[in-house]
This record gives sequence, structure tokens and C-alpha cells, in this order.
Amino acid sequence: MSTITVKAYGAESTTADLKELNIERREVTAKDVEIEILYCGVCHSDLHTARNDWGGSLYPVVPGHEIVGKITKVGSEVSKFKVGDLAAVGCMVDSCGHCDSCQHDLEQYCQNGFTGTYNGKDKHLGGHTFGGYSQKVVVDEHFVLSVPENLDLAAVAPLLCAGITTWSPLRHWNAGPGSKVAVVGLGGLGHMAIKLAKGLGAEVTLFSRTPGKTDDAKQLGADHVVISTDDSQMDAVKGKFDLIIDTVPYEHDINPYMQTLSLNGTLVLVGFVGEFQETEVSTRPMIFQRRSVAGSLIGGIAETQELLDFCGKHNIVSDIELIKMQDINHAYERMLKSDVKYRFVIDMQSL
Amino acid sequence: MSTITVKAYGAESTTADLKELNIERREVTAKDVEIEILYCGVCHSDLHTARNDWGGSLYPVVPGHEIVGKITKVGSEVSKFKVGDLAAVGCMVDSCGHCDSCQHDLEQYCQNGFTGTYNGKDKHLGGHTFGGYSQKVVVDEHFVLSVPENLDLAAVAPLLCAGITTWSPLRHWNAGPGSKVAVVGLGGLGHMAIKLAKGLGAEVTLFSRTPGKTDDAKQLGADHVVISTDDSQMDAVKGKFDLIIDTVPYEHDINPYMQTLSLNGTLVLVGFVGEFQETEVSTRPMIFQRRSVAGSLIGGIAETQELLDFCGKHNIVSDIELIKMQDINHAYERMLKSDVKYRFVIDMQSL
Repeated sequence: MSTITVKAYGAESTTADLKELNIERREVTAKDVEIEILYCGVCHSDLHTARNDWGGSLYPVVPGHEIVGKITKVGSEVSKFKVGDLAAVGCMVDSCGHCDSCQHDLEQYCQNGFTGTYNGKDKHLGGHTFGGYSQKVVVDEHFVLSVPENLDLAAVAPLLCAGITTWSPLRHWNAGPGSKVAVVGLGGLGHMAIKLAKGLGAEVTLFSRTPGKTDDAKQLGADHVVISTDDSQMDAVKGKFDLIIDTVPYEHDINPYMQTLSLNGTLVLVGFVGEFQETEVSTRPMIFQRRSVAGSLIGGIAETQELLDFCGKHNIVSDIELIKMQDINHAYERMLKSDVKYRFVIDMQSL
Repeated sequence: MSTITVKAYGAESTTADLKELNIERREVTAKDVEIEILYCGVCHSDLHTARNDWGGSLYPVVPGHEIVGKITKVGSEVSKFKVGDLAAVGCMVDSCGHCDSCQHDLEQYCQNGFTGTYNGKDKHLGGHTFGGYSQKVVVDEHFVLSVPENLDLAAVAPLLCAGITTWSPLRHWNAGPGSKVAVVGLGGLGHMAIKLAKGLGAEVTLFSRTPGKTDDAKQLGADHVVISTDDSQMDAVKGKFDLIIDTVPYEHDINPYMQTLSLNGTLVLVGFVGEFQETEVSTRPMIFQRRSVAGSLIGGIAETQELLDFCGKHNIVSDIELIKMQDINHAYERMLKSDVKYRFVIDMQSL
């Protein structure tokens, strides 16, 4: 299979800084589009994969799954796109296409495993896939999204992961006018959860451990901020929320939040992947008010398009800090300290 | 308020055996019915409350919340019942009546707390309520159920707690034709879950730790039995079940069962009230297939009537062992060893 060589930025080992390197992209096949990448968001998963925090990383790791750019080439059977169109790619570049999940536009739950945009198994070239920290990417058009023309393109990038990861549970659990949604954690995912829940018409509350984030949260659209370390404030919202989007990416005690769910309410974990080891999950809040704890993973392709269209209509984008490709290692260190409001986006012209 | 004295069986302290004693029942007020108790089922909660296993027990404890009998007196404003009718009482004898839960026929989730049939706060006489291990009970007609005439009355009793506790989640999570339901634990609750899920038209699987229960489970209506200690059997049902009714009353590892839920599937805990301390609940099965863990508590009054009517129509009752009131202490010891198929019921004529 013929390929083109493009510049990228990646890590060659667990401990190595990211640096410039060359990777191969396939020439477009009949259903593929080639995208010149203009901006790429920086997700915590990028860092975790580069450093093999979850195990199983394949090197070199070229991260990046919040990709926006312009189409530079299309395959002979491509019908959704033409050269010059704005386009975006999120966390997936392929899936089996025939399982029940794929047939229902839920590629993220593909029963045979979707292909991650990076560190997935490359079905075309062999080896593993490379992400958006690069000049170009070639993707099957089914996994390519259309981008509304009216939005700040750099600030669109984080919608492809942080956005859809919060949008999907908001939609699945029917957030909208009349519903009360709370968000735990104010980072890349949390700030999008606030904007999107508000955009959908819900009454939105942020749980924060410290009062310092109150003004920011309200500026993002939160109606209320509840200081979760203040027992009287927590008591005051007992039984209040229909849905809690919990974006905290590490183990934490969910029991105090469970109490704030209404009858039939659901707390959806979108950040913490792991086991509750230090904290004891209690069944009491579940049993005594028929509450649920659930999880949710990114979102399907059709749902991601729905999100982008919604954001175009409601003029919603991410709050970002634009960086150069060469600043990525420093940005990772700042991200580890949550020193970003609220998402780094790489200007790929810098590569 | 005038009262009548009736014989009952109760525990006078944490360590005391149950023995005969006298209790007071109120004379019927306008909305009350008086029921001569014919049979009373024996629930694990009876034993836990008698022995103060959960704390907060008030003595003497007169247990019993699976009550069936005949109406012997009705108040001036009673409209649903007349003297001579069969009637039943479950786990609740009162609730606030005006909160959102009560207004939606969900008295079990009353925001102001329902009144338990025993060890609840008696709004009429002061002190605490006494349960069904007694000759008579006086209850507001709203909390009294009609009993179909065609069923074995003794075997109806366990429907009032074991039955409704499994019926409510089966209905709430839409078990029916085309759905796949699994049951964890084959005791009082578990055997009802099998019968009711089957009655609703679902395909029913029992998870069992040992092959010894296979024949019994199939006789109760289970289509399949999966030995949960056999990895290959567990692998074979990965992603299969829409709903799991987990009746195990103590802490246990739910992760192996979570893997057997389908996309969007829910495991409902109805037995274990407490914290996961020894086992680590994992978020992975939740996140990667949008599964949920939920809890459910008994059922509302209207839903309990629906269950009794359904059982009358489908000829479903509990499998019971009838005992005399005087055998209750021995029965408790046998219940602790799960030595009963599947519910003890007291013949109250013996008192």
C-alpha cells in the first residue's frame, strides 16, 4: 500500500519527551479523506498513553484525538466531503461496522472493539495508529465529522473528546429544560459539561471543593456552585439532581454526591476508569431512592455530529489556551497541575 | 384512643428468643380496617430487627411484614374493603401522603419516611409499630391490598415482601418478552425473581455458585443456570443480560456479573444494604458498555396490588414451608443456614 511521509510529534519511550519525528500515512483509499490538521486538542489520555500509565502503549506514541482541519484529498467513493471542507476527527477512526452497537450508531461500544485514533491497531498499514499531533491524517469518511463554519476552529477541537464525552451522557439521560444537572470537577470535561448542559436548557450546578472556582463556573453558565466540603451546603441539595456528570479522573468518594441525586437519579462516571479501592461505595443511597451509578464512554459518530451541529447553532466552543507543538512537554506538566483553563490546543502550523 | 389487646410473638431484647406477649392495637378509625391475620411470612429482616443487627431496634420487637388475613372490622369511611374480604399488608402501614414520591404511588420512597409495619413510629398510639406475628392488625385502608381468591393463601404471604421487592425492579426496568433477565442468589427473593421474570415473559437465567441448585432453578422456571465459579460459563454469557436482579444479602463481588450485562444493562441490588469494603467495585464494565448499578426498595402500594393481581391471573405463589408460631426461633436458625425452600410462613392459627 502506498504511503506518504508526514511530520509528527511523538514519544519514543515511556520516559522520553515528545519530539519531532516522521510517520507514514496511507494514500487515500476509495472511502478515505486526507485532512491537513490545523488544530489538535490536548487530552489527559494523550499524556497517559505517552507515558504508558495504563499499560499497553505502543511506541512511538503519536497522541492527539481532538483533530480539526481542512480536507486536502478524497477517495473515489467519498460522498460526504469534498476538498476544502472543514473536517474533524475524534477518538475513533474505525470499528467493525456490523455488530449491534455499530448498527445502532454506537461505534464507541463496538462489540469487536473500535480502532483508537492513536495506539489502535492499524488495519491498513499494520502496526498501530498515529494521532493528531501531525501534519495530516487519513481517515475513512464514516469517522470524519463536518465542522460548522461559524465557530472558532481552534476552540472546536476539544469538542471531539471533552465535548462528546459529556454530551453523550447528557443526551442519553435526557438533560434538558426542567432537569437539574450537576457536574463534578471543573477541568476540560467539566467545563464542557457545564456549557452543554446549560445549552440544553438544564439547571446546572457545579460541585467544587473550594470556593475559588465559583466565579469561573458561573461565567461558564453554571446556575449554582455547591462547595462539596461544606456539609450544610451538601445537605441543602440532598435529593436534588436528576443527573450528575462526574468528570473526576481519579478515585474519589462518590457517596456524598449520591445523596444529592433525586429519586431515580443517575451519577455517570466519565473520568475515573478503575476500581474503588480506598473509598467504599455504599448501596444505601441506591436502594433507598432507586438511584444508579453508571459509566459512559465518549460518544458515537452520529452523536458527535449532532453535538457539532448543536454547538454551531448555539455558538458553544471550548475555552482554550493555544500552544505551539514545541511547547507540548511543558503543557503536559502544567496539565498535571490542572494549570489550564480549560484545554490546551496545539496550533499545528507550528510543526 | 381506645385499643384492643391481642396476642403476639416478639423479642424483648437483642438476645432474647421470641415468645408470646400481649400488644395493643388501636380501635379502627374512619379509614382503618382490622384484619385477623391468618398467615405471616418470615423475612430475613424480621430476624435482623429482632436481633438489632442493623441497630435502632425498639423492643419488644414484634416482626412480620408479609401478612395475609380476613377483614373483621372496617371504619366508617372505608371504601375499598368490607368485612369478610381477604386482605394483605406488606412492609409499610403509612407514609406522608403528600410528597412527590407518595403522589406518584411510590410510598416506599416517601421523602418524609414511610412507617414500617414493625419498628416504625406509630402515629396513632405513640411508641413503635408491631408486625404480623400477632392475631390482628389495624391498618389504614390505603396500605391494605386485595388478595385474589384463587391462590393458596399461605403461599401468598411472601409476595408482600420477597415478591414485591423483585417485581418492582423487573417492572421498572421493563422485563418482558424479548428481554434477558438474570438472578443472583436463590433464596426467598431469588426464587420469586425467577417465577416473576418468567411470568412476565423474559428469558431467565440463574447464577449459582454450585451446580446443586440447577434442577430446582429449572423447576421454578429458569431457562438456564450459569455456574458463576466456572470461568468458561461466565465468559459464555458476557454481554448477555439486560437486567440482573441481585438478591444476595451480604457483600459480594459484583464485577463478574457486571461483565455479563449487555450494553445499557443494569444490575439492581435488592439484598445487600451496606458498603463494598472487601471487594472493589470497578468502573470499567460501566464505562465501556454504559452499564449501571442501581438499587431498589420493595415497591409501592399500587404496584403491590398489580403484583397480586398478576399472580392471581398467572397462578404464581411462593414456595413455602408452613410452621407454627412456636417454631419461630428454630426457623430463624434454619433461615441463617438457608435451610428453607424458599420461605417460612407462620400459620397464625397456632398462636
